[in-house]
Parts: sequence; structure tokens; C-alpha cells
Amino acid sequence: MSILRQDPTTKDWVIIATDRGKRPDDFQKTIVESTFATYDAECPFCPGQEHLTPPEIIRYPHGSHLDWRVRVVPNKYAAVGLNGKPYRKETGHFFREMGGVGHHEVIIETPQHHQSLSRMTTNEVEAVLLACHERYCALKQDPQVKSIVLFKNHGERAGTSLIHPHSQIVGTPVAPLLVRKKYEVAMSHFDDTGRCLYRDLVDEERLAKVRVLFESTRFVVFHPFASRVPFETWIAPKYEEPAFGHVEHRHLAELADVLRRTLKALDDALGNPDFNYIIHSAPPEDDTKHYFLWHIQILPRLTTIAGFELGSGIFINTILPEDAAAHMKNYLQ
Amino acid sequence: MSILRQDPTTKDWVIIATDRGKRPDDFQKTIVESTFATYDAECPFCPGQEHLTPPEIIRYPHGSHLDWRVRVVPNKYAAVGLNGKPYRKETGHFFREMGGVGHHEVIIETPQHHQSLSRMTTNEVEAVLLACHERYCALKQDPQVKSIVLFKNHGERAGTSLIHPHSQIVGTPVAPLLVRKKYEVAMSHFDDTGRCLYRDLVDEERLAKVRVLFESTRFVVFHPFASRVPFETWIAPKYEEPAFGHVEHRHLAELADVLRRTLKALDDALGNPDFNYIIHSAPPEDDTKHYFLWHIQILPRLTTIAGFELGSGIFINTILPEDAAAHMKNYLQ
Repeated sequence: MSILRQDPTTKDWVIIATDRGKRPDDFQKTIVESTFATYDAECPFCPGQEHLTPPEIIRYPHGSHLDWRVRVVPNKYAAVGLNGKPYRKETGHFFREMGGVGHHEVIIETPQHHQSLSRMTTNEVEAVLLACHERYCALKQDPQVKSIVLFKNHGERAGTSLIHPHSQIVGTPVAPLLVRKKYEVAMSHFDDTGRCLYRDLVDEERLAKVRVLFESTRFVVFHPFASRVPFETWIAPKYEEPAFGHVEHRHLAELADVLRRTLKALDDALGNPDFNYIIHSAPPEDDTKHYFLWHIQILPRLTTIAGFELGSGIFINTILPEDAAAHMKNYLQ
Repeated sequence: MSILRQDPTTKDWVIIATDRGKRPDDFQKTIVESTFATYDAECPFCPGQEHLTPPEIIRYPHGSHLDWRVRVVPNKYAAVGLNGKPYRKETGHFFREMGGVGHHEVIIETPQHHQSLSRMTTNEVEAVLLACHERYCALKQDPQVKSIVLFKNHGERAGTSLIHPHSQIVGTPVAPLLVRKKYEVAMSHFDDTGRCLYRDLVDEERLAKVRVLFESTRFVVFHPFASRVPFETWIAPKYEEPAFGHVEHRHLAELADVLRRTLKALDDALGNPDFNYIIHSAPPEDDTKHYFLWHIQILPRLTTIAGFELGSGIFINTILPEDAAAHMKNYLQ
């Protein structure tokens, strides 16, 4: 029989149905990387094609002033943007519309066309996180921004259209329901106990041990109890910090090392899987309260989101997170 | 600038960003159907292989007693099932688990291996809907079932593993958050106005006209104001009916004709796209109250659910539903 588990951070359930008999190593695929070109003359994110992107917001130089390590540019096909005035329109009783005011930027993580965070050095990953952090703090200054979503799409199944490594940051003029729900659940826990839900949860995962992959001084990496997809992996701080923008610069190197090692282990265990990750933070207006803890959710895209998930919001996972975690431990370096 | 629109049934927002300049006919793909085999000797859903499925629950005969039009069988790889006793377990403060008690069945829609609802006759589609209806009413009798999700995955991008046409019905022992949210929003509208949210919404869509594809005596087909994906299409009744199980048998033929015509138009406009559809109903325990209206959501899978959607719950749609609807009208028969 399958089991249902409740995600304590959303109160929604997942179904874990292992009856298909998939073992953790069934997800491993053969790595086919025929081309490992470091440069693609058609790619707008490669060096020499900087004129193909909108004017850059950040450039971290490297050696000569023409070289760079990381660039941040506005997304050419922005979901929300800076042009146009904010407006609200209501037609009839139901048709509520507003202008897509906001920010949508791309963090180009490396000048190399074929590269990945898992193969980069800790220093290089740190520069990526620093750029994300810098833009997070900048977007937070805009009073129109109600939510900041930092995410990465890696691979076609994860929705990427450009192979050159990049992540994205979006500042939206509304607080998404999912973000609000996560915050409400955390606030309710704080009302009941006076403590941060996520810190309590991280403590219980550390106590249970079976889903924890590894820890550093300040961070813990684990597969959550109610993993929605096979090999879902979270990275969370062990200290109180509601938003990613609050991380001190001096701790980004440690986070970079933890992120790099986690992605490397996923790469090795699963054969360079497509994945998304999201850096969740408290809504900017509430990020001084210690109800929330920022955290990274890594979601390998090994299965397809189908009708049941779209119709119910409930995910069907085919492997127990403790089994996935045990398997992952063979690949940690 | 993009626009944000609020879905009045969930209160969540979607982003409609048309800046990529995609026109409705850019989604048309060339239909490549090299094989149109009506039979596959390896397929567990094809006639002659009935022994490969668990014992059947329903068989609608056709001619001789060996032939059939529609079969319903338990899902061999069930997400929830009948074996085992219901239990709840709580470890620590957070780790809540329960047995996956429930029902998960497959409706095999036709004996033909390569076939689709859009190419079947109205009579054949009616038999499929009748089987869905019969199983909906049966699952509703089980007091452990808190939610019934009826859905179809068509094509690989929609998550199907078997090409032979089938849909699925799942009765879960918990009410999913999404189902509860939709119901709460409808209940709140009823509290405010004394009217059904969905009936009001259908009336406003009919008044606005621009997103309505067509109507029959009892049903209306439209692209919702806050469409989450290109060509999202809803079918809703024009009369009060909280759950699919309440549809009278004599009206299923009309619904079958409407569903068939809608899927045919999507096939012709988009070149046999992968899609999911979901038949939403009020939760079984509340389906006598007229807050809710059952409805079908058809979601073509032309774009990928990526990090932004997974991190915020907000969908980015690249085409205005009124433009998609105008385009679809060229393909209605």
C-alpha cells in the first residue's frame, strides 16, 4: 500500500507509491555529453555577444576589463517589466487585471557555454550567489515588489530555452498564493509555539537522521519527509534568517560549497538530471520577522507533472525520501 | 508590458506575457502519425490482453460477449489502493503519515490502440463519460473518499506512459488543498451574494463573448479570463450542478458531443497537442450544496512548467486567451 505524507510547510499531502518497484539506481541515466564546447557563436550569453542582451546591470570582472565571471542582465523576454505605469482594472465582477510591473533579470553564471554549477569551483559558485544576493537586495528596495522568486531551470525538461548556465530573479507586484500559504503556515506555528517552523523542522530532520545528506557548520542538506518528487533536496540554514537577502557575505562561500557538493552528488547519482531549484524567502514586507527561514528546494525533473497533480495539487512520488537519501550518500564527496 | 490577471476561482494570479510575439498559429505543429495501428500485441489495454490488467470492474459489451466498447479496471500501479487498513501515524511534531487507502482506476476508452476522443463518434465518447460517471457515483459511496479526481493524460508531455486511450479516476482519503481552496472561494462568494460563483462567472464570460468558443443547450465552452497556459479551455454546464456525479444520464450524449468537438478543434488548431484534462467537482461530502459547479479544464501542454511556476504557483502564459479563442473559432465544426 502507498502512503500519504503531509508537508508541514504547506499542510498539503503527497502520495508516495513505491509499488512500481523502482529502486534508487533506476533513475540513473547514462550521461551523453557529446559536445562540451565552451563557446557557441549563436549564444547571447557567450563572451563577445554581450550586445545581444539588454544593457547589463552587474558585471563581475575577471582579469582584463573585457573578461567577466558573472553578468546580470534584464530578461529580454521578461514576465514582468519596468516600462509602463502600474494600473488596476476591473471589468464586471470577476475580471481583475493589473499591469505586469516588476523585475525579471537573468544571472549569467559563467562565460563558458557548456558548464554547470556542479563542475564549477566553490569560488565561481560564490560569485553567482553574490550576484543573486546583490540583486535580491536591490529588488527588495522597490516598494512595488511583493515577492522575490529566485530560481534556476537546468535542462529541457526543467523548461530552459538556453543551455548557457543561468538563473533568474523575478520581483512580482503580487504575493503569490503559494508564497502566502507557506508564510501563513509558518506564522501559525509561531503563534502556537513562539518558534520558527523551519528551524523546528530542520531540528527534527537532523534528529531523525535518515533523510539528512550532510551538514556544514551553518547549513544542512536533506530530502524532506514529504518529498514531492524523487530526490527532492532542500538546503536550509541552521540559524534564524527569514530571507536570502539577510545572508552575510562572509557566509556565501560556505553556502556555495554546500550547493556545489549537493548538485555534484545529484549529477553523479542521477546522470546530470534536468532540475529546477528555487530559493524561497519570506515576502519582502515581512522579512524581518523570524517566522520564516529561507531555503533552497532542488527538484529533479525525472517524472512528469500530469493530470492528477494539475487537478489536485498533490504530487505522486515513486520513491521514499529516506531510500533516495541512503542512495545519495554513495555519491557525496 | 505584460499583464497580470486574477483567477476568480482560486484568487491566484497568472502572468500573460505576449512579448515573445508568439501568434496563435505559432503553436501549430505538424502532425506526424506514422503508425496508425489499431492494435498492439504488447499493449495491456488492447483486446486479447485483458488478462494483463487486474480483474475488470466494468465492461460495456459490443456485439458478441467477447467484444467490448469500454472497460474499467483497477490501476495496476495504483497511487492509492484498497488493501491495508486505514491508519494515521505521527512521529515528532511534523512527520504525519497515513495509509494510502482509496481507489485508483483506469477507464479504457476504446478497444482501438491508436485512437482519440476527438476522432471517436459521439456515441463512443458518451460510453466513456457514462463509465466515468458510473465510477464517480460508486467511489462517492465510500465514506473514506474525501475527494474524487477524474483526469486524462494524453501524450508524453502530459505524463502518459501508455498510448492506448484511457482516463483515470482517483478517490483520495484527504481533501487536497487545491480542491479545498476552490471550494472555499466558491463558498465565500455564496456567503456574499447567495449565488454560485461559477454560474456567475459563466454568465460574465457569455456576456463578454470574446473568450467563448461555442455553446450547446446545456453547456458552454470558453477560454478562461486568467488562462494559465496557451489554449486552456473550460467546459461548464449552464445549470446548477455541484458534482459530475449529478449529471443526468440523458444529458451525457450532449456533453459527449461538446467534449468531442472541443478536442477536435484543439487537435486541428494545434496539431494533436499533448494535453491533460481534469473534471473538477465539489468534495463528495459537500456536493449537495450549490456553491460549486463541476467543470472540465483542458490544459494543452505546449509549454513547460518551470522553476518560476514551481516556486510561486503563478503560471506565465504567452498568449491572450481572447486571441487564442479567436484563432480556435476557425477550427470549430
